[in-house]
Amino acid sequence: MGQALALAQTVLYITAPNPRVGCVIVRDGRVLGQGATQPPGGPHAEICALRDAAARGESVAGATFYVTLEPCSHYGRTPPCVDAVVAAAPGRVVVAMGDPNPQVNGSGLARLRAAGIPVTTGVCFQEALELNAGFAARMSRGTPWTWIKMAASLDGRSALHSGMSQWITGAPARADGHAWRARADVVLTGMGTVSKDDPQLTVRDVAVPRQPRKAVVDGRLQISESARLFDGAEVWLFTAHDDPVKAARLARRNARVIVLPGPEPGRVDLAAMMRWMARNHVNEVHVEAGAGLAGALLSADCVDEIVAYVAPVLLGDALGMVKLPMLSHLDGARRFDFVDVHAVGKDVRLRGRFPDRWQTLQTAATPR
Amino acid sequence: MGQALALAQTVLYITAPNPRVGCVIVRDGRVLGQGATQPPGGPHAEICALRDAAARGESVAGATFYVTLEPCSHYGRTPPCVDAVVAAAPGRVVVAMGDPNPQVNGSGLARLRAAGIPVTTGVCFQEALELNAGFAARMSRGTPWTWIKMAASLDGRSALHSGMSQWITGAPARADGHAWRARADVVLTGMGTVSKDDPQLTVRDVAVPRQPRKAVVDGRLQISESARLFDGAEVWLFTAHDDPVKAARLARRNARVIVLPGPEPGRVDLAAMMRWMARNHVNEVHVEAGAGLAGALLSADCVDEIVAYVAPVLLGDALGMVKLPMLSHLDGARRFDFVDVHAVGKDVRLRGRFPDRWQTLQTAATPR
Repeated sequence: MGQALALAQTVLYITAPNPRVGCVIVRDGRVLGQGATQPPGGPHAEICALRDAAARGESVAGATFYVTLEPCSHYGRTPPCVDAVVAAAPGRVVVAMGDPNPQVNGSGLARLRAAGIPVTTGVCFQEALELNAGFAARMSRGTPWTWIKMAASLDGRSALHSGMSQWITGAPARADGHAWRARADVVLTGMGTVSKDDPQLTVRDVAVPRQPRKAVVDGRLQISESARLFDGAEVWLFTAHDDPVKAARLARRNARVIVLPGPEPGRVDLAAMMRWMARNHVNEVHVEAGAGLAGALLSADCVDEIVAYVAPVLLGDALGMVKLPMLSHLDGARRFDFVDVHAVGKDVRLRGRFPDRWQTLQTAATPR
Repeated sequence: MGQALALAQTVLYITAPNPRVGCVIVRDGRVLGQGATQPPGGPHAEICALRDAAARGESVAGATFYVTLEPCSHYGRTPPCVDAVVAAAPGRVVVAMGDPNPQVNGSGLARLRAAGIPVTTGVCFQEALELNAGFAARMSRGTPWTWIKMAASLDGRSALHSGMSQWITGAPARADGHAWRARADVVLTGMGTVSKDDPQLTVRDVAVPRQPRKAVVDGRLQISESARLFDGAEVWLFTAHDDPVKAARLARRNARVIVLPGPEPGRVDLAAMMRWMARNHVNEVHVEAGAGLAGALLSADCVDEIVAYVAPVLLGDALGMVKLPMLSHLDGARRFDFVDVHAVGKDVRLRGRFPDRWQTLQTAATPR
């Protein structure tokens, strides 16, 4: 299963909106065939592995199939994989996670069992879910898996009062941040960051076959048409301000304006934005924004993980990482779990995850 | 040498102001004797190891002596260890670090070499220096090795505006903090913390043979005689305010007032305070203070390490970890190195160390 997960990792950037899946067919400790899901419309992992075995002239009847996700049992752009698996007559199928779509979870496994094939489930479940948290979130709850990337000093300062934030963390941390950008479907920022830094929001330090889509939360539709992030593919602009004239002008810069007003004037309905993105096939959102949007997303309960780079420096009187309402008691603070702590160059990367949100995914993806 | 270091670790709390030293005598992979430095006035590690070998009926002539610190060559409360080592006629002596006293470094090794004993130096040098950074700092630069213990949210907030700071971090992090208190000679805090929290400043979660001394920076000598920290052994109060009447009253609470006025009124000369402590045999200072004193110590360049516990929570609008002057450019920020990153319960401990200060110790302790 470790090898199947590693195969799934190799297609991290190309399967969206489909899940990243790997499959290895083994007999007597020997690999007969292996594969990973190809870009949408292409074959899924099980089919790739079967074709690989055929190309090697191997017979797979009676072999053990390791697959990181329950084989699909429905017609999409491709026929159901489970039929091909059953036809191959495996001796056993080992599955890491179930199909996270609550309406489908278990039907692939049921088909295998009905064909008399022994099925083992839940092997490397957490690792498989990590690879496809976004797919699982979209399928099970109708919103993308969303993380905020932050960079700050040890005392939580992300910029000086002068606005200077380049560079608190070092080059390896910034490159690692680009790897997180690269795996996401959407890189989201706020109008404050656009006006302050005029970022390109592209992936630069990682070789990727496609750039993630760019998106901006711009409540009052104040963005300048000369912003650098418009260079390239279509940009999504989420706004509360319905201004067809400006929207038309922005369309000429390849921007799509989506009007989703929230309860407060000039504020986007962030939860609706997340649902909109999931409907538009977004699995994973990488947020790279200032304290305002970061805090607003946290307050709106739109954040699943925090990817924070902490630099070995204390800055004292400088700008904070998140704007959040003042608390009167610590019980009011929502705690996450540190799930990964890692040195990255001279900095440290701390990944935090809200446990209730991970629990929901786990429940949805537990094989039935 | 690993075993000798482990022995030195066992006397972490009892050798001060002497260094923590371990010695293991080995022949053909067999331990003939071992020992660690005893409390002041008691035998040093080499003598303990020789006595242990004698008690076992082992002859140590020709054996290899592993010792974490260069054997002493001068008469203190005990005769020089190097004479006893030479008399034992070892086949070889392996030493981790030199004597950090610049006037003494090398003389113990020279005595061994003059006696024709082969000497190997620098084995596990960093680990040995870690154990005795305080001794090395006091000997080589005349100030204690000083760390600040901090606890904060991921966004660097150490307390709510309401003053509430109990408890941002969890019980395991607090217990680990007590282990750092325990190894120090002095636990230092500021008047702000005393008036806000009325702390006891004692070691509670670790079994220790002695409590570290308590000390307070109280520029205006405003401390109340009813403060809880006066319960117990003598407390040092560093002040800029010469008030013999109050000092006499405080003396009845077992407080010793040390007047060290700095350039600004009501401010203690913190560098002079550190020199005063070293003259009074303090090797290691554990600072547990609010943002004011923490920032002042950093600004006065009195800090060697930062021991920061980061909790998995974001607090936003709350109090910061350190008060430091506003910077106009990031180049002005003094960077440390993260030397240890560690999960402690649900929190993460990050240890930072200023590399120039460690370099100074390394230079002083390099065996000659």
